[in-house]
Amino acid sequence: MSRPRSVERLIESLSRLPGVGPKTSERLTYFLLRSAPEVADGLADAIRDARASTRVCSVCFNLDEVEPCRVCADDGRDRSVLLVVEDPRDVAAFEDSGYRGLYHVLQGRVSSLEGIGLEDLTLAALLSRVAADPPTEVVLATNPDLEGEGTAQLLCERLAGHGAKITRIARGIPAGSTITQVSKSILADAIDGRRPLA
Amino acid sequence: MSRPRSVERLIESLSRLPGVGPKTSERLTYFLLRSAPEVADGLADAIRDARASTRVCSVCFNLDEVEPCRVCADDGRDRSVLLVVEDPRDVAAFEDSGYRGLYHVLQGRVSSLEGIGLEDLTLAALLSRVAADPPTEVVLATNPDLEGEGTAQLLCERLAGHGAKITRIARGIPAGSTITQVSKSILADAIDGRRPLA
Repeated sequence: MSRPRSVERLIESLSRLPGVGPKTSERLTYFLLRSAPEVADGLADAIRDARASTRVCSVCFNLDEVEPCRVCADDGRDRSVLLVVEDPRDVAAFEDSGYRGLYHVLQGRVSSLEGIGLEDLTLAALLSRVAADPPTEVVLATNPDLEGEGTAQLLCERLAGHGAKITRIARGIPAGSTITQVSKSILADAIDGRRPLA
Repeated sequence: MSRPRSVERLIESLSRLPGVGPKTSERLTYFLLRSAPEVADGLADAIRDARASTRVCSVCFNLDEVEPCRVCADDGRDRSVLLVVEDPRDVAAFEDSGYRGLYHVLQGRVSSLEGIGLEDLTLAALLSRVAADPPTEVVLATNPDLEGEGTAQLLCERLAGHGAKITRIARGIPAGSTITQVSKSILADAIDGRRPLA
């Protein structure tokens, strides 16, 4: 006797999730089969509902339930600053940090390994936005890793000459850490990016 | 702007899965929002379908789409051997290994830490089965860990006197490994459980 067909199908469906291998998928499957209805059916509903309710903002490519998204539609935002991020998750993170300007979501980063170029991202829309309604400053907030830095460098070249000041988010010691715990490259960044106090 | 309500709800639903923390939950959520319909909707369908289609066998407590389960209903099985396992996943594993007797699923193991006693498992049904239609042999196939061994010991005491031979699955060196790689306790088990060849 192999497993029931519907159980095999659930194992197979779960194993398509990133980071979920066959063993984890099997464990999650039997968890879902035994869990309370609100857990399992709640998850199935939440998947369908989130996909049906969210859309990509035509202005900034953030995900929201309204079009344009609540940030783009909010008259109280500082429209002179445009923060360029890789992913809608980054928008949520910067919102939590208290940032109150506008966003542009690239929907990825340049990766030669994966064959993703600048043209595969939402670059054309970014250039149109900057040309049509130039912000005072464009902050490049791609991740501080190899591909994020490369993407920022390429974006900087493409945005130059549009009149806006182009900046890059700071790299340095993360707040809450101690100097002896962080890596050499973080300390080098912290020295490089030092700022005058007096 | 916080995240859209439906996105928050999906993050929350996914974080109820075992081993899924808030960061993994967020990552899976945005993966599902961006994935092809067959991946996300397929998962939602698979959860509902597997829960609606499967039931617990009233004889052996295995999970299947038919009642009694296909093993219990199969006249070709060796009804003289009853393999007692903790979980329906164990049934699937022993099936793959070629075992062709019957099963009894305990739906757990005795755990003093979690306050789970023998009476919380499907013991009453096991005792009734053994009394009503005594097998020649009951093989205790709980896991070879502390709780599984304890459960096997307690089951052995309760099953004694019912006429069936009570056996325990072998512990020893796992096939495919090498003697220098396995732990001392595995080697001790292998010596303890040695069998005559000639």
